Amino acid sequence: MSDVASGPILAIDMGASRIRVGAVMPDGRILARGEGRTPGSQGAAAIVEACRDHLAALREGLDEATRAALVGVSISAPGPVDSRKGMLVDPPNIGAGIRDVALAGPISESLGLPTVMDRDTNVAALGEMTFGAAKGARDFLYLTVSTGLGGAIVAGGQLYGGADGFAGEIGHLPVALDWPPCGCGGVGHLEAASSGSGIVRQALIAIDEGRAPRLAAIVDRVGRAGLDARLVAEAADAGDEIAAGILDFARRSFATAVVGLVNTFNPELIVVGGSLAVAQGDRLLEPARQEVAHVAFRVPAARVEIIPAALGDDVGLLGGQPLLARRGASQSGGGRGVAC
Amino acid sequence: MSDVASGPILAIDMGASRIRVGAVMPDGRILARGEGRTPGSQGAAAIVEACRDHLAALREGLDEATRAALVGVSISAPGPVDSRKGMLVDPPNIGAGIRDVALAGPISESLGLPTVMDRDTNVAALGEMTFGAAKGARDFLYLTVSTGLGGAIVAGGQLYGGADGFAGEIGHLPVALDWPPCGCGGVGHLEAASSGSGIVRQALIAIDEGRAPRLAAIVDRVGRAGLDARLVAEAADAGDEIAAGILDFARRSFATAVVGLVNTFNPELIVVGGSLAVAQGDRLLEPARQEVAHVAFRVPAARVEIIPAALGDDVGLLGGQPLLARRGASQSGGGRGVAC
Repeated sequence: MSDVASGPILAIDMGASRIRVGAVMPDGRILARGEGRTPGSQGAAAIVEACRDHLAALREGLDEATRAALVGVSISAPGPVDSRKGMLVDPPNIGAGIRDVALAGPISESLGLPTVMDRDTNVAALGEMTFGAAKGARDFLYLTVSTGLGGAIVAGGQLYGGADGFAGEIGHLPVALDWPPCGCGGVGHLEAASSGSGIVRQALIAIDEGRAPRLAAIVDRVGRAGLDARLVAEAADAGDEIAAGILDFARRSFATAVVGLVNTFNPELIVVGGSLAVAQGDRLLEPARQEVAHVAFRVPAARVEIIPAALGDDVGLLGGQPLLARRGASQSGGGRGVAC
Repeated sequence: MSDVASGPILAIDMGASRIRVGAVMPDGRILARGEGRTPGSQGAAAIVEACRDHLAALREGLDEATRAALVGVSISAPGPVDSRKGMLVDPPNIGAGIRDVALAGPISESLGLPTVMDRDTNVAALGEMTFGAAKGARDFLYLTVSTGLGGAIVAGGQLYGGADGFAGEIGHLPVALDWPPCGCGGVGHLEAASSGSGIVRQALIAIDEGRAPRLAAIVDRVGRAGLDARLVAEAADAGDEIAAGILDFARRSFATAVVGLVNTFNPELIVVGGSLAVAQGDRLLEPARQEVAHVAFRVPAARVEIIPAALGDDVGLLGGQPLLARRGASQSGGGRGVAC
């Protein structure tokens, strides 16, 4: 098994709001790009069509030699994803009624290329392992801290998918029993405590309970939908105690969870990406490192490095190369979650 | 790779207080047994000697044909264990000063047999996979709820060891941020909430704070060292609200953690052994099943079964057969944590 595909690929990175596409070479060069809105509110068919159109336009723009050399398509999509069937399962943030949507199959058929698909965090983990911060690592965790908090497990050099390829939803491990509510319906999950949406949810609850006049003033200005973790962090930096408490709780919860991950996985690395992790930098990572040094088991604590991701926004495209190399043999969104 | 060793083995199951040994056939029959106290307070040399003596006596008692057919020795020991070096690392419950004690090497040398060693929970997971509740499973978790709360991860049919073979300390995942204190030095870990020692620690704190007169009366009778989870559970059943609160918290924490494990590992099975799990039965498992059905992600929730372990106290002996089959090639406590 090679680390990367045998030629250029078309890669698609579907997010909750944007679709990005790129033609990616085996060495990680991105030859051409495209971008557009994710038409989540228009239903499943519109999403499939948008992906298809972006990829077709991208291919059109390539020179003839590259076009002829294309070996496949990779899709990075918001979880949960059924990587074996190439389907969106029921992504909470794309649009209502998006459930069990086959994506890899129709795209493979339309473009006449083998098409593989996986959850965005799994694709990112492969990208960082091949081109980025986790080069050479065999046992590591990838975490992304942005609107949500996602994860991926690499075990012995392979993505760990569990029984159905769904493993790795590390954001939905508990850190607290009774607070805060999580978008998944649970309570006290890491995502609820430490993600952007979790921070905003905590802030809105504090506003609704009349505990946060300064945050309420921000919401009066930007609207409830306009509140984001950056604004809460700015309020904290400006001295608002409620906002500072929420940020402190987010960082403390993250550190506590990371100790549990070190004890449970004994990883070489924990690679942390995502917009909120980038914005917070060592304000997020350093408390986690210190908590690991103080509390985690001796050998795993000495082993692990907790480091920022290296590939930024391109990770969902770059990860398509190793994803296709691992799963390309089984066309049309087939492929296994574990022994890929 | 065969599932079991090519002949009879000598197996040793070292616990905090007892050492048990047995001659185990590839079909799981136990031909002969021995047992004695773990001389933890007498230091590392005494432990190695006790293991050696028990195994030598066990071998002496075998008929000549079996003795001649022995293919190796397996050691199940309290974590943390360095399975690659065959060493006890720093087990908290065996005795003071037990740190980095080589066990597999000296035993292999003394008995002239290949000797493999692993953490008790990893050995138990292999035992249940080969002879017990997890037969045929490829992706499952093993949990043991007794004095401590331990775990093991089986990923794609292999024990998952992580970078150093230490992975699987699932009892040291968080379930709460600030309470209760854990024996490992952390706070709010699953073991602190839901294990026997955790339940006792919570009860003693409640007594010391004057909140638990009924539990205090029990301690007056049995002494602080005599309090165990069974007595706390009996007090709860007899109507003591503090005891009932502690047991309820233990079960709720366990259920919450199990949801996180289902989301993170997407396992086929979670097999739960250990004396406290046996004593509690469905009072422990049923809330976890219900919480998974209500809160965990749809596909992993539909997949997982949460079931009791099947092999009881013999699991640490029986698991020696598959352990040796997987690691026997590298003698004297060698072998890899992951790709075994």
